Amino acid sequence: MASASDHLFMSRAIELARKGLYTARPNPCVGCVIVQGDQVVGEGYHQRAGEPHAEVHALAMAGTQAKGATAYVTLEPCSHYGRTPPCAEALIKAGVAEVVIAMQDPNPQVAGRGINMLKEKGIKTRLGVMEDEARTLNSGFIKRMQTGRPYVRAKLAMSLDGRTAMASGESKWVTGPQARSEVQRLRALSGAVVTGVGSILHDDSALTLREGELKLPEAAELVQTQPLRVVLDSRLQTPVDARVVTGPGDVMIFCSVQAEKARKRALEEAGAEVLMLDSHDGRINLEQMLEILVTKDINDVLLETGATLAGAMMQQGLVDELIVFMAPTLMGSDARPLMEMPFTSMSEKLNLNITDIRAVGNDWKITAFPKND
Amino acid sequence: MASASDHLFMSRAIELARKGLYTARPNPCVGCVIVQGDQVVGEGYHQRAGEPHAEVHALAMAGTQAKGATAYVTLEPCSHYGRTPPCAEALIKAGVAEVVIAMQDPNPQVAGRGINMLKEKGIKTRLGVMEDEARTLNSGFIKRMQTGRPYVRAKLAMSLDGRTAMASGESKWVTGPQARSEVQRLRALSGAVVTGVGSILHDDSALTLREGELKLPEAAELVQTQPLRVVLDSRLQTPVDARVVTGPGDVMIFCSVQAEKARKRALEEAGAEVLMLDSHDGRINLEQMLEILVTKDINDVLLETGATLAGAMMQQGLVDELIVFMAPTLMGSDARPLMEMPFTSMSEKLNLNITDIRAVGNDWKITAFPKND
Repeated sequence: MASASDHLFMSRAIELARKGLYTARPNPCVGCVIVQGDQVVGEGYHQRAGEPHAEVHALAMAGTQAKGATAYVTLEPCSHYGRTPPCAEALIKAGVAEVVIAMQDPNPQVAGRGINMLKEKGIKTRLGVMEDEARTLNSGFIKRMQTGRPYVRAKLAMSLDGRTAMASGESKWVTGPQARSEVQRLRALSGAVVTGVGSILHDDSALTLREGELKLPEAAELVQTQPLRVVLDSRLQTPVDARVVTGPGDVMIFCSVQAEKARKRALEEAGAEVLMLDSHDGRINLEQMLEILVTKDINDVLLETGATLAGAMMQQGLVDELIVFMAPTLMGSDARPLMEMPFTSMSEKLNLNITDIRAVGNDWKITAFPKND
Repeated sequence: MASASDHLFMSRAIELARKGLYTARPNPCVGCVIVQGDQVVGEGYHQRAGEPHAEVHALAMAGTQAKGATAYVTLEPCSHYGRTPPCAEALIKAGVAEVVIAMQDPNPQVAGRGINMLKEKGIKTRLGVMEDEARTLNSGFIKRMQTGRPYVRAKLAMSLDGRTAMASGESKWVTGPQARSEVQRLRALSGAVVTGVGSILHDDSALTLREGELKLPEAAELVQTQPLRVVLDSRLQTPVDARVVTGPGDVMIFCSVQAEKARKRALEEAGAEVLMLDSHDGRINLEQMLEILVTKDINDVLLETGATLAGAMMQQGLVDELIVFMAPTLMGSDARPLMEMPFTSMSEKLNLNITDIRAVGNDWKITAFPKND
């Protein structure tokens, strides 16, 4: 059904969409290409929430050449009046003859409506061209829309023998500077960075985007919108002068209802938002935490934490993607494990799809997805 | 110094040498190409100890066209009368004008002699064309010649989180069938496969080449010459009916001088060679073990063992290459470590060069070399 030129133009639309990867949130990244007689006459992408959608930019560039043209869009054109009028209407008004769409709107409440608006006006539509590639662009947005939970990437750094730190906690420079730049990029992708209080107490992690380490052309702009930093801290042990509290951007601390009110007040006075969560045996309800983040329009969560919280998230099936930076070292059998998960039988082991392993400086970046079996 | 055609012809000589990879031991793999006016007129490789060397085959094929030709050889032509006359002499007799050599003979006692024989007869020689590639072909032979110890590859199978088995020892099928075929190939490369008695007692490992699993065209022939199977068993716990004892090929068991004489006799009667080694605190002297293997003309040792022996070999600097098969699973923090190495400080960690990671079925094969720093 899809021709070589369909792939060519949709690839370009995806390339355009990707330009919004670090800036469009909480909106999805979307790209659009308008093609008239095999010539690209309009291009656009969605850069920032509140600004025009991809189709509007592309139609503006195409002008009168949009009449009778084919539009390629990476996501079903919207059908509702939001901060901007519906894009389906804009395509109709411009007189395009055909709309090729990579994927439906992931919101089950509105999926198909944009396509129907087009069809009703006699515009030919085709759905599903390069859908997998388009979905990858918006893992977080899709997850939020379809499940009411954010997409969780767990970032871990380990030695070849699967260790993250010495038993003492000593762990500085497990991985090299290129891997740390990649972590900065993962933070830039994420609406929130989540950690446990252990990382705050032990390393005084700031969890911020840093212009010098974020090797992207738009780094200076990106550091202006820091991801929300989130600390899971059931007993509110985070010091008021911790870098995560005093640093740039917003910080949210989740504690249990047993936490001391005075500590809560002190942290709030220092600028943190402190929220109490249900807890069980001193452990915070992690699903509730993720659902609260969704109310803050968080699509993508980056989990940067130690073995205990990472293991709990993993065992509860709350991790969507694992990104493991593997250093070319052996840290030995007494060093800390990748994740605290006390399995006793092979039947308990968690299966993954490892989809990519690539060199990042002297380290290796491993991308894996939990298998639901 | 080396031209494009030098690389072309030496690449072909290396390709030829590789044909002897599984059969030439304890001799090195060597390939030879004879070139007359940019045409290959002769090709040969060394297939088996006792049979003609690469140069002899190539010269026989070239016949009178060898006169005035250039010979490309992956290893310095031999200068001594062994089971065959010296190849340097054969090249001289055939009247070749030039000899291009990838690497010197690694035996420091004879290195350079073959080159000198050629030079004395006015034959032009060039040394070092594609030397790195040529060295990789004969890691084991070179190590044995230069150090009096074999080249040790440690093969390990682990989960993404660096675990080899559950605490109970349960470990079947950590990796898949393609990875197991790769292990068969590593065994076929090796003069000896070394394990600890734990693998024998727990898994009754046979450590043999198996025709069905060794996915090579010459599998049927290769299984006729099984690698020497070696068990480190200080107290001689290996059962006389263990598969490693009763299976095809030779088996050698190293024990400590404290081992029971009756056990030794029983194992010898079952067909094993039993050797007593110095030991300290019940641990066998591993360097002595390797030196004894060299007296048996073993170039390449494949270490297929558990965490204790692998960790001891690694910590003593006796591992030359690590081959880790990583399965796409998480086995959890109570599972067994990759190597027993109780480090307490980051300064003790062992640094590696990871040179290659590739997919092998659903698993990943990681090749790493200890860094001497």
